[in-house]
Amino acid sequence: MKIAVLGTGMVGRTIAGALAGLGHDVVIGTRDPQATLARTEPDMMGTAPFAEWHAANAGVDVAAFADAASDGELIVNATNGAGSLAALAAAGTPNLAGKIIMDIANPLDFSQGMPPSLNPVNTDSLGEEIQRSFPEAKVVKTLNTMTASVMVDPARVAGGDHTVFVSGDDAGAKAAVTELLKGFGHRDVIDLGDITSARGAEMVLPIWLRIWGALGTGEFNFKIAR
Amino acid sequence: MKIAVLGTGMVGRTIAGALAGLGHDVVIGTRDPQATLARTEPDMMGTAPFAEWHAANAGVDVAAFADAASDGELIVNATNGAGSLAALAAAGTPNLAGKIIMDIANPLDFSQGMPPSLNPVNTDSLGEEIQRSFPEAKVVKTLNTMTASVMVDPARVAGGDHTVFVSGDDAGAKAAVTELLKGFGHRDVIDLGDITSARGAEMVLPIWLRIWGALGTGEFNFKIAR
Repeated sequence: MKIAVLGTGMVGRTIAGALAGLGHDVVIGTRDPQATLARTEPDMMGTAPFAEWHAANAGVDVAAFADAASDGELIVNATNGAGSLAALAAAGTPNLAGKIIMDIANPLDFSQGMPPSLNPVNTDSLGEEIQRSFPEAKVVKTLNTMTASVMVDPARVAGGDHTVFVSGDDAGAKAAVTELLKGFGHRDVIDLGDITSARGAEMVLPIWLRIWGALGTGEFNFKIAR
Repeated sequence: MKIAVLGTGMVGRTIAGALAGLGHDVVIGTRDPQATLARTEPDMMGTAPFAEWHAANAGVDVAAFADAASDGELIVNATNGAGSLAALAAAGTPNLAGKIIMDIANPLDFSQGMPPSLNPVNTDSLGEEIQRSFPEAKVVKTLNTMTASVMVDPARVAGGDHTVFVSGDDAGAKAAVTELLKGFGHRDVIDLGDITSARGAEMVLPIWLRIWGALGTGEFNFKIAR
């Protein structure tokens, strides 16, 4: 499948590389490809310059948001949650219409310091904001409850014996995303319901961050024991 | 240990009965014991009248909030989250001072209809509100992330192979609560950190409610796979 991954940070790179490794035709979208490729210093999070990653993943095309989205049959939102609506707007409403947006971002708000809070939260979610902003797209919230390495290689943790969630209004879109998740190796996919259930998926981030602190690693995941 | 369980709903009854079964000296606190015992109809949630439960659990004393808290060495807040601060105020600040408050309530807000939202949320929590209101008590948030039957009998789900969290400012209080949890059969207790980490524990409620809907049962629990 032709897949556009929006976002060149650690999450976008991890997802794009894994999808390409599974044989998908992947383009990674960014605001300004020339600027992204020209950076030679690690970013604020210590992530290596994009060009280094791209040299090792030359099969993944790099394009401006709109060109990437225009090419993609499925769009992955792997941008920073605070910038997701702007990135998708730059991708262009016509380039998203009728397509699945697999939204894996979290609306973390660092404006009040650490630990981050969420915005929106409780009676709204980023997943719903995206669905409202692009009503002709089919938004599926998923994968935001685990770290990037576990998203694409669940067997890294407890042999893959844990759970991933999907939320969205379109049953066919959730089925297609579930197939992609199974391609990564996920075995337990729980359908939480319509896109309003993205509130619940996003609101696990605060405990995720505390568990990360308690365990000293992000390489864990929630399993729904039953 | 002498334990006061505040709250006569399903959660309070389940905890009180289980603690008594473990040999603790348990008193259950309510606003007006005579009124609680006089009810003959199921409540709004369909829970049987308290007197029926009490007849089958005669070893558990029933007392007004203040009398129960005065007797208890450890206080369990099993009241409705919206009424917890009022119930604890009725229990009386001097009766809580220096004691552990094991807070298992969730601040569910049904004022906007279903599904409930949380209040407080995100930058505050019920656990923190209680700690601020009763600074001489040692609040430990725990057990709020699972249904009552699983709180006291974790082996009901996946042979007990799942996780319970504790949050609180006092290491000794968390250790004492952890011992109680192990008495119920919990094997994996993760210390999330200080009482501000109760935000994370309370914010899993929205996804808990959606998983309940998806699975058709509340008899599940979160396991942190790692």
